Amino acid sequence: MRLVTFESNGVPRAGGLRVGSTGVPEVVDLQAHDPSLPGSIKEILEAGPAVWETVRRAIAAEHCTPLDQVKLLSPVLDPQKIICVGLNYADHAAETGAKAGDEPVIFCKLPTTLRGPEAPIELPPESNEVDYEAELVVVIGTRAHRVSRVDALDHVAGFACGNDVSARDWQKNKPGKQWLLGKSFDSFAPLGPWIATRDEIADPGQLDIEMKLNGEVMQSSNTRQLIFPIDYLVSYLSHVCTLLPGDLIFTGTPSGVGFARTPPVFLKAGDVCEVSVMGLGTLRNPVKIATEYD
Amino acid sequence: MRLVTFESNGVPRAGGLRVGSTGVPEVVDLQAHDPSLPGSIKEILEAGPAVWETVRRAIAAEHCTPLDQVKLLSPVLDPQKIICVGLNYADHAAETGAKAGDEPVIFCKLPTTLRGPEAPIELPPESNEVDYEAELVVVIGTRAHRVSRVDALDHVAGFACGNDVSARDWQKNKPGKQWLLGKSFDSFAPLGPWIATRDEIADPGQLDIEMKLNGEVMQSSNTRQLIFPIDYLVSYLSHVCTLLPGDLIFTGTPSGVGFARTPPVFLKAGDVCEVSVMGLGTLRNPVKIATEYD
Repeated sequence: MRLVTFESNGVPRAGGLRVGSTGVPEVVDLQAHDPSLPGSIKEILEAGPAVWETVRRAIAAEHCTPLDQVKLLSPVLDPQKIICVGLNYADHAAETGAKAGDEPVIFCKLPTTLRGPEAPIELPPESNEVDYEAELVVVIGTRAHRVSRVDALDHVAGFACGNDVSARDWQKNKPGKQWLLGKSFDSFAPLGPWIATRDEIADPGQLDIEMKLNGEVMQSSNTRQLIFPIDYLVSYLSHVCTLLPGDLIFTGTPSGVGFARTPPVFLKAGDVCEVSVMGLGTLRNPVKIATEYD
Repeated sequence: MRLVTFESNGVPRAGGLRVGSTGVPEVVDLQAHDPSLPGSIKEILEAGPAVWETVRRAIAAEHCTPLDQVKLLSPVLDPQKIICVGLNYADHAAETGAKAGDEPVIFCKLPTTLRGPEAPIELPPESNEVDYEAELVVVIGTRAHRVSRVDALDHVAGFACGNDVSARDWQKNKPGKQWLLGKSFDSFAPLGPWIATRDEIADPGQLDIEMKLNGEVMQSSNTRQLIFPIDYLVSYLSHVCTLLPGDLIFTGTPSGVGFARTPPVFLKAGDVCEVSVMGLGTLRNPVKIATEYD
């Protein structure tokens, strides 16, 4: 099934996405259909598999709204963590000149970065080098503490497209060389348009992934290029921090990012980023200048 | 006033701390006194200054419990962010051999690290170099987005003691040199025992700060050694990420950390860490071996 968060009268609602009888994508308001259901996707994940079955039935319900009549938000609104993996595609590691290590490079984005489909990526006046990174994002479904690789995928609820937007000047040139702030300007983590639950994705290690900038393909790869696969990442991270429902793991980006091009390409106002992952739709975000009051 | 979170019948409750007429510290259950008050400290901060006045009155109420009869939890249970400053005391920068930069070194801890007073610091089997760091922690009170240094302190609710527990081997020796995981094992961010609101602390830049390990003073300094003071940090960070009520800023640690000693000192099971900051009490945490089921 496909889970979304959408806005109704200014309030976020948990929804299910389906293709209606006429072939038009439609959104089902889950709590309107079944008031016993939790009101947010994170709470639905926290409630566990029994509730997910109710959700599955609700998505087959009668009352729904065509997708183009709702405003989608980030499918998870308030993850406790947004953990990211650096240099996790063989082709991207090569273009940056970095060698793959024995363990993954792990950093994170602060949760104020999160945005939904069509929400603008805001260029801060503090950076001149804002870059895109198309990524497959893992959404944690159930608490994971010191889980083995064999059990790891059981803790994954599903997958979504993400864009790990990065201010390269901040990422690389600040004292201490910590990536956090360069990755954490507000709006630097678009996510969506939906979460596809794990049963929809036969093999997350065999997905085409693509990034288009203003319609031009900038990144085109496949998740089989992942150096550290998803089961490894979930198990590895769960030995440091307990993973909770709704936590997000951005699994890394393939080659073709802006800063590694000749000449470099950085985002500018008026650009449009589109991240597509097979089975997960297209996450589209326009780019604008940040204003003081955003 | 002094704000705490305590456990009652297994449920976290928001409380106020006061000295009773007999000189014994007492905890007032805020919502029990005034059911209109929010149930958590984060929600009380989010509700803003009008509610804080109600809280102030509630702390003068009759019904209360002696402090030694309640179990204190982390005064904020679920901050969206735990942002940390590295190398922010002149004496600590010197002992690590690092030079102070033009801007602070910023990293973060994942929120699953948070623990309250007396909760154990859990030594993970993955590290042999777990270290302590006594810190003054800033608690954000109201949303801060691109605020000036002059306005910055208006967005601070108060202060608490914190311990930025760090696995040095993970912090320093992992691919990519990102500090996140070394700082983010579960239980690596004890906080408390209370939040002192800003009116209680005349000058947060003039506070004695101390760390005792098993009763022996290991760190002893004063926040006037801070290279980047609190107004600078709040303003600087608010230009990258919007700061929200309950967000925590660990402001850095003075000299005397374990890894910089000769010979190095690392935490072992049975140790007791005590962080004291003038006006903020003492944050005491025993050290134990992490088990699979913690």
